[in-house]
Amino acid sequence: MTPNETTAAMVERICHGAKAAAGPLSHAGTASKNAALQAMARGLRAGAEFLKKENAKDMEAGTSSGLSAAMLDRLLLTDTRIGQMAEGIEEVSALPDPVGGIERMERRPNGLLVGRMRIPLGVIAIIYESRPNVTADAAALCVKSGNAVILRGGSEAIHSNVAVAGVLREALTTAGLPGNAVSLIPKTDRAAIDEMLTKEEYIDLVIPRGGEGLIRSVVEKSRIPVIKHYKGVCHAYVDENADIPLAVRVCVNAKAQRPGVCNALETMLVHQAIAPTFLPKAAEALVNEGVELRGCPETVRLVPKAVPAADADWGTEFLDRILAVRVVPSMDAALEHIRKHGSLHTEAILTRDHGRAMRFLREVDSSLVLVNASTRFNDGHQLGLGAEIGISTSKIHAFGPMGLAELTTTKFVAFGDGQVRQ
Amino acid sequence: MTPNETTAAMVERICHGAKAAAGPLSHAGTASKNAALQAMARGLRAGAEFLKKENAKDMEAGTSSGLSAAMLDRLLLTDTRIGQMAEGIEEVSALPDPVGGIERMERRPNGLLVGRMRIPLGVIAIIYESRPNVTADAAALCVKSGNAVILRGGSEAIHSNVAVAGVLREALTTAGLPGNAVSLIPKTDRAAIDEMLTKEEYIDLVIPRGGEGLIRSVVEKSRIPVIKHYKGVCHAYVDENADIPLAVRVCVNAKAQRPGVCNALETMLVHQAIAPTFLPKAAEALVNEGVELRGCPETVRLVPKAVPAADADWGTEFLDRILAVRVVPSMDAALEHIRKHGSLHTEAILTRDHGRAMRFLREVDSSLVLVNASTRFNDGHQLGLGAEIGISTSKIHAFGPMGLAELTTTKFVAFGDGQVRQ
Repeated sequence: MTPNETTAAMVERICHGAKAAAGPLSHAGTASKNAALQAMARGLRAGAEFLKKENAKDMEAGTSSGLSAAMLDRLLLTDTRIGQMAEGIEEVSALPDPVGGIERMERRPNGLLVGRMRIPLGVIAIIYESRPNVTADAAALCVKSGNAVILRGGSEAIHSNVAVAGVLREALTTAGLPGNAVSLIPKTDRAAIDEMLTKEEYIDLVIPRGGEGLIRSVVEKSRIPVIKHYKGVCHAYVDENADIPLAVRVCVNAKAQRPGVCNALETMLVHQAIAPTFLPKAAEALVNEGVELRGCPETVRLVPKAVPAADADWGTEFLDRILAVRVVPSMDAALEHIRKHGSLHTEAILTRDHGRAMRFLREVDSSLVLVNASTRFNDGHQLGLGAEIGISTSKIHAFGPMGLAELTTTKFVAFGDGQVRQ
Repeated sequence: MTPNETTAAMVERICHGAKAAAGPLSHAGTASKNAALQAMARGLRAGAEFLKKENAKDMEAGTSSGLSAAMLDRLLLTDTRIGQMAEGIEEVSALPDPVGGIERMERRPNGLLVGRMRIPLGVIAIIYESRPNVTADAAALCVKSGNAVILRGGSEAIHSNVAVAGVLREALTTAGLPGNAVSLIPKTDRAAIDEMLTKEEYIDLVIPRGGEGLIRSVVEKSRIPVIKHYKGVCHAYVDENADIPLAVRVCVNAKAQRPGVCNALETMLVHQAIAPTFLPKAAEALVNEGVELRGCPETVRLVPKAVPAADADWGTEFLDRILAVRVVPSMDAALEHIRKHGSLHTEAILTRDHGRAMRFLREVDSSLVLVNASTRFNDGHQLGLGAEIGISTSKIHAFGPMGLAELTTTKFVAFGDGQVRQ
């Protein structure tokens, strides 16, 4: 940022620079992009001392301003974590290049060959909070998919983010790609975001990652398409025909394996016919994992350790060792509960009945619907995408985990030999 | 619209109704949707007298308010045109159902089978101007793809649109699908649009079809994702290696076969090495088709009939028998001109050189890029999509013509036998 530059001028300069970098990057070959990614990884490792020094400024400011121990831990950069960032970039480098292939080439009756060529989106803006590793992850995914990226991280991590982005930009330039392909907005006030969200002539997509308030504010103000990732209120429906030991194992995993993430289970719906046999076993296993159960009256009757659920517990993303449990009279009631309280994120059915499994798959409107498996699988790596930049809970462009392919689009290409329209 | 209902209450009621209809429609089988489409077509034919009577009110109002003859002609409903609307719906009925198939089913190392099931988007709002046939076309495409639609047509066609939508809703109900799956906002002031654009809890996608002003205003105000179709400023680049008779034939077709549409040619770029032989021949053929040529100085020198182009002619969508012509020193200059003045819609290269054809395909960032064929092929029917609801010039979700598949998305589905996350 040059002295005396206004926020508006700075955002304009950065967006313009990113747009100019997007053209060359979109045509860069796979070898060239991979070489740049390797250089980025090497740059992070070589710059570890510098990164830790800059990170210390954020840690100090965070300590003074009273950030929680958990927040400070997320902020901290150590040699191990810098190494992990570098490895993450190398993993992205090893993934197949999504760009340039032509899909579904078909011959039209007039002889015209028509296909769809996969191309980058252009410039992607990513707005995120706290963890500095997002800076490196997002940059790597965008470079590999041929997109320029404009990063705007949270104020707590500003020194770390500027340092990481600086190292990555230098590596890009060294590798012969434009440094502006990875740009970072060095101001962390809302004004810079608001300004950025009007730049539809430069930016093709905005991905906000963070709290619901941040995302709603971005959606309200943006003239640029936004891919949203709202909360994950994930449900498991234990059908009357469920295999009980399997259902217990899956529900415990879904809730307790890592409760603080968006694909963790938040509500368990149990068919009344299986509740008397299933619930006591499930409750025991869940309580053993330290989970607090908040149940409907029938649940509380069957499971004395459960406390009564409040209305607000249905549809709440606890992100903690708390599970809402409801006994339902039918599968219809379970589907209705999910329609009313779900977040379109992840839902699972536990059943041995094929027809009911297929009905659940068809009728539940979530980015991932599972039969007899844990909600924790809603993740780009787990579903085979190789990496992810986030999980979309809106249906436009991408629904569910977004990998490299979801950071691209297709254009039509046609090979002719003089065809004209009649 | 009930008496004394405010615009806000009306929009809320209609959006809520459409959302409620979207669920049942999204699960409706192909046979059921096709039966509804057939009933819609029959309804239009049977209702022809009623439709013409309502249309006459619009025609009368349009005549009084001084609509141009061309506008009045676009507005007019005749028996033939009503028959064509019905046939259009029957054609959509005959297309394959895009919904419900599972794509790319893969087995993960833990045995989980993961695929992507194609599903409707939900509720689509379409904002359009004048022609009442859009009401029927859009309704048919949305019903076939399992989406509820909220239509908001222009004020000139309000009686016709209300009548057409009424007939279609009745047919849906008769066929056992919810009538609210095709809803129409019966108020044509901007306030109703503005209100609708805040309803992100009900509407999944907005498609504005009309002038650039309308589209920009929708983008600015909408909290809902918008797929844009801005203007089409299509270019043809005649390379130094072009086959001259082929290039003349293609350029004449692209400009003159139907000059008033978005995929018509607006600017021809000619390599200087071929200009002296190509331009006189092309000019003669174009002038024979009544085309006015506006050229750069070199064009005017080679083609005495050409008038000098003004700066504003580059990048103008003439939608008329006018063509801007520029002689360029190189392919790089042509690519630069397209980057600067193009609209990401449709660009063609005329060349016999394979390498240059492939470079043009790669580097031109348009929804359709052609080699040796007319820009007029950028159309859902011509490219093999079967139908289209518009041509997207933005890259998110769909780029180029949008057919039935582009009105859907995919959700992940996973079949397990007890998989848990390690």
